[in-house]
Amino acid sequence: MKEETWKTSITKVEPNKLLLRGYRLDELMGAVTFSQGIFLAIRGNLPTEKEGKILDAILVSSIDHGVTPPSCLAARTIASTGAPLNAAVAGAILAISKHHGGAIEDTMDLFQKAVSLKKTLNATHEEAALAVIQEYSNAGKRLPGYGHRLHTKDPRSERLFQMAYELDIAYDYVKVAGAIEVGIEKTLGKRLPLNVDGAIAAVLCEMGFPSELGNAFFIMSRVAGVIAHVFEEQTTMRPMRHINPTEHVYDGVPERTLS
Amino acid sequence: MKEETWKTSITKVEPNKLLLRGYRLDELMGAVTFSQGIFLAIRGNLPTEKEGKILDAILVSSIDHGVTPPSCLAARTIASTGAPLNAAVAGAILAISKHHGGAIEDTMDLFQKAVSLKKTLNATHEEAALAVIQEYSNAGKRLPGYGHRLHTKDPRSERLFQMAYELDIAYDYVKVAGAIEVGIEKTLGKRLPLNVDGAIAAVLCEMGFPSELGNAFFIMSRVAGVIAHVFEEQTTMRPMRHINPTEHVYDGVPERTLS
Amino acid sequence: MKEETWKTSITKVEPNKLLLRGYRLDELMGAVTFSQGIFLAIRGNLPTEKEGKILDAILVSSIDHGVTPPSCLAARTIASTGAPLNAAVAGAILAISKHHGGAIEDTMDLFQKAVSLKKTLNATHEEAALAVIQEYSNAGKRLPGYGHRLHTKDPRSERLFQMAYELDIAYDYVKVAGAIEVGIEKTLGKRLPLNVDGAIAAVLCEMGFPSELGNAFFIMSRVAGVIAHVFEEQTTMRPMRHINPTEHVYDGVPERTLS
Amino acid sequence: MKEETWKTSITKVEPNKLLLRGYRLDELMGAVTFSQGIFLAIRGNLPTEKEGKILDAILVSSIDHGVTPPSCLAARTIASTGAPLNAAVAGAILAISKHHGGAIEDTMDLFQKAVSLKKTLNATHEEAALAVIQEYSNAGKRLPGYGHRLHTKDPRSERLFQMAYELDIAYDYVKVAGAIEVGIEKTLGKRLPLNVDGAIAAVLCEMGFPSELGNAFFIMSRVAGVIAHVFEEQTTMRPMRHINPTEHVYDGVPERTLS
Repeated sequence: MKEETWKTSITKVEPNKLLLRGYRLDELMGAVTFSQGIFLAIRGNLPTEKEGKILDAILVSSIDHGVTPPSCLAARTIASTGAPLNAAVAGAILAISKHHGGAIEDTMDLFQKAVSLKKTLNATHEEAALAVIQEYSNAGKRLPGYGHRLHTKDPRSERLFQMAYELDIAYDYVKVAGAIEVGIEKTLGKRLPLNVDGAIAAVLCEMGFPSELGNAFFIMSRVAGVIAHVFEEQTTMRPMRHINPTEHVYDGVPERTLS
Repeated sequence: MKEETWKTSITKVEPNKLLLRGYRLDELMGAVTFSQGIFLAIRGNLPTEKEGKILDAILVSSIDHGVTPPSCLAARTIASTGAPLNAAVAGAILAISKHHGGAIEDTMDLFQKAVSLKKTLNATHEEAALAVIQEYSNAGKRLPGYGHRLHTKDPRSERLFQMAYELDIAYDYVKVAGAIEVGIEKTLGKRLPLNVDGAIAAVLCEMGFPSELGNAFFIMSRVAGVIAHVFEEQTTMRPMRHINPTEHVYDGVPERTLS
Repeated sequence: MKEETWKTSITKVEPNKLLLRGYRLDELMGAVTFSQGIFLAIRGNLPTEKEGKILDAILVSSIDHGVTPPSCLAARTIASTGAPLNAAVAGAILAISKHHGGAIEDTMDLFQKAVSLKKTLNATHEEAALAVIQEYSNAGKRLPGYGHRLHTKDPRSERLFQMAYELDIAYDYVKVAGAIEVGIEKTLGKRLPLNVDGAIAAVLCEMGFPSELGNAFFIMSRVAGVIAHVFEEQTTMRPMRHINPTEHVYDGVPERTLS
Repeated sequence: MKEETWKTSITKVEPNKLLLRGYRLDELMGAVTFSQGIFLAIRGNLPTEKEGKILDAILVSSIDHGVTPPSCLAARTIASTGAPLNAAVAGAILAISKHHGGAIEDTMDLFQKAVSLKKTLNATHEEAALAVIQEYSNAGKRLPGYGHRLHTKDPRSERLFQMAYELDIAYDYVKVAGAIEVGIEKTLGKRLPLNVDGAIAAVLCEMGFPSELGNAFFIMSRVAGVIAHVFEEQTTMRPMRHINPTEHVYDGVPERTLS
């Protein structure tokens, strides 16, 4: 083994045999879902059934949010120049940053700080929540994960937390997330409901993901929606059009239910 | 409605209500898998159970192929400079091009040409296969989707076609793909087995996807593996190291089976 | 020398000594302009004085074209999410594609075909021009490099050709470019004046650049303007604003002259 | 003027007339160099003759540093997949981050802090240098802009400072940069000479650029070298090769001088 040899523990590649975290890829195919495969690749082990279900919900929740998010607009702008799909998708991912998707990582840091305080101080969720609100306020920092410019009651956050409770994986992080929402109203006198970034952050914390991977799930999820937008742009719009983010109408299928 | 108003049929966004292709996102969460959500976003309708299963297999098949693919190396190279996750992932996607992942689109074109010829000429799969082999040979074009520099019998292609037959969705495209493999050996005298790009191409054709979307599925799948590599690079390697693609060893868990 | 050793002829790196195409970088600093350095890096030799001058004009001509080009909009959209400068610039470059900047490469191919025809057929510039117009028309292909959606008489093309004549570097390519403009009016009955992409293409051909490098000069030039836009976006606009490409006003310094 | 109208002061675009910071682009062509045009676009006014000269030197200094920098390797890796030039260049720019090029911005912050301290404390350059060294040391932060893994005496830094003194634009920032180098040796007992990032940082500070634009100049400069590498990769290497960063040899022209 020469000096510059380096180590990887993700995939073992041999002729006619591929092991992802120890499992043969062809054995995984047909046996696990894409979400389970994603969990396996990133964490090194397969998720429990509950973890698989909630991860599916996280990844479904953020597939798309219409044409106005910067990731969608960057992708459509690039696609309108005749660029290939991968360039448009790469441009979208570059727009998933601090103010767009980036709140997941910041909110995971917030919740980890709160839960850590709770343990250190042997405090309740409510006390820990008030302590971090105070800490951010003293530091002049905005609390990430709360409030949305459009949704006053985000249906995605509500559904995700409902699932977390039903699946019995709502422990400290989900609870402290709720306590912070209550604490904000008490302290600052305004309702800033947990947004979808915040709800995803709490559930990722419950599953033991480090905050550095928070945005990864938003990226994977949104890439699917971006691909739909790029394809729509390429097949229905003229190249080099001026894309006004606000002057658009939805002309798809009307509301329907899963039955 | 002003002149510049434009139309989109993917997502309807209203305060506290998000409709993806007509379905409420919060209703989809917990009810469909990520793969089903991807299919819905891109195609406009939910997949059948069989389509959902085979799409999961496609998306699992390409999650990772170790450290040597250019997408992985571009991502690790960018990550080693201290760049954020999204920049490294965007770099990886830019490397998913003509010679890496790009064969899916080209192979879909090949199979669509073959099946079209079969119908026009009222020919067998074997005759159509020989006709397209001849056509590509005359034009001096390499047949995409066959042969692999490492795998002589790609376990992923075999498993995908096995599933396609079991799920009863192997029609003209899967059959003509097999016929072309046989035809290549007959005509050119060499064994060039269908690779995973080729197998994915045939199944995507069976599901009615246009070839322009071929690479989209490879991109979505590989992003998961790339994220695992970027995280490994960020957490276990020193910044700015020289990344030699060949001098590495696998030090992960040994081979294991699903149960 | 081991098997995988590969060769490069651009820069020789030694401790305390850097040779760009043979010249010490510290000797080049202060002795050559950036344009001359660019020419040296790409071509392998320093430009003549005339080549240096016209290259400066090319690189100055495309620095910026306001806020509506997709490269600018992609960069501003990405910057508005709080992304770092390099991510916004990378996004801009991804938008420099087929319909935006990409015409330089295509027009170089057109002019090379025309000049090649002229030599093969021992024809005049006018005859060669008519022949390629006919050829593109027969193939149903649009002639690149002519016409602009805003400028009916592009001041940048005019100035570049004026300089090419003054510097005495206007030979076959510049002349055939003019002949094609005349030929288009004769044949198709409409005035489609040479645009800046077309003028740059002709001059790059005169300097012996291969068409594969055509877009490189547009990329290098426009990166400067994009950086100005990203900085303006970051310092004067609120994050995540909706960027309407058409609803903007210029509020900079009024027209002035170099004096 | 509607509510969403926004303002830009970079370029005024009218039919047949383009004003960059007030000057007609066609008047600038032939009258200013590319470096002067870059300065104009970013700063809003033309540089003095001295500023133009030193900016040329900065932009020439960083054009290339051989095949091992991550920007070059990312670009070559992407190019080797058959990706277009713009994708490879975008990938390179994504690798210009914290540990590669990013030191310019950090070093500008360091020098601005030192010069600010000097003024506040009415101190000498030497005292201010020792104060910031102490401050960074107390905070456990590494001093950016000093030391290089290959060059013990970077010829580019030396030349840039020599020019700054000759052109008489070496004031507080250049001097404090030198004082910090001396201070590091005194305090830490090791020689960490100013590297090229540090030298560029000092000169950009002298010209009044904000630190947020520090990396912009490295990006613009290195794009030229990256384009040379991408073209070399595309024209002389086989696709999908394994690019070993260390196993390469220079086979270009031998050392030569400018006259």
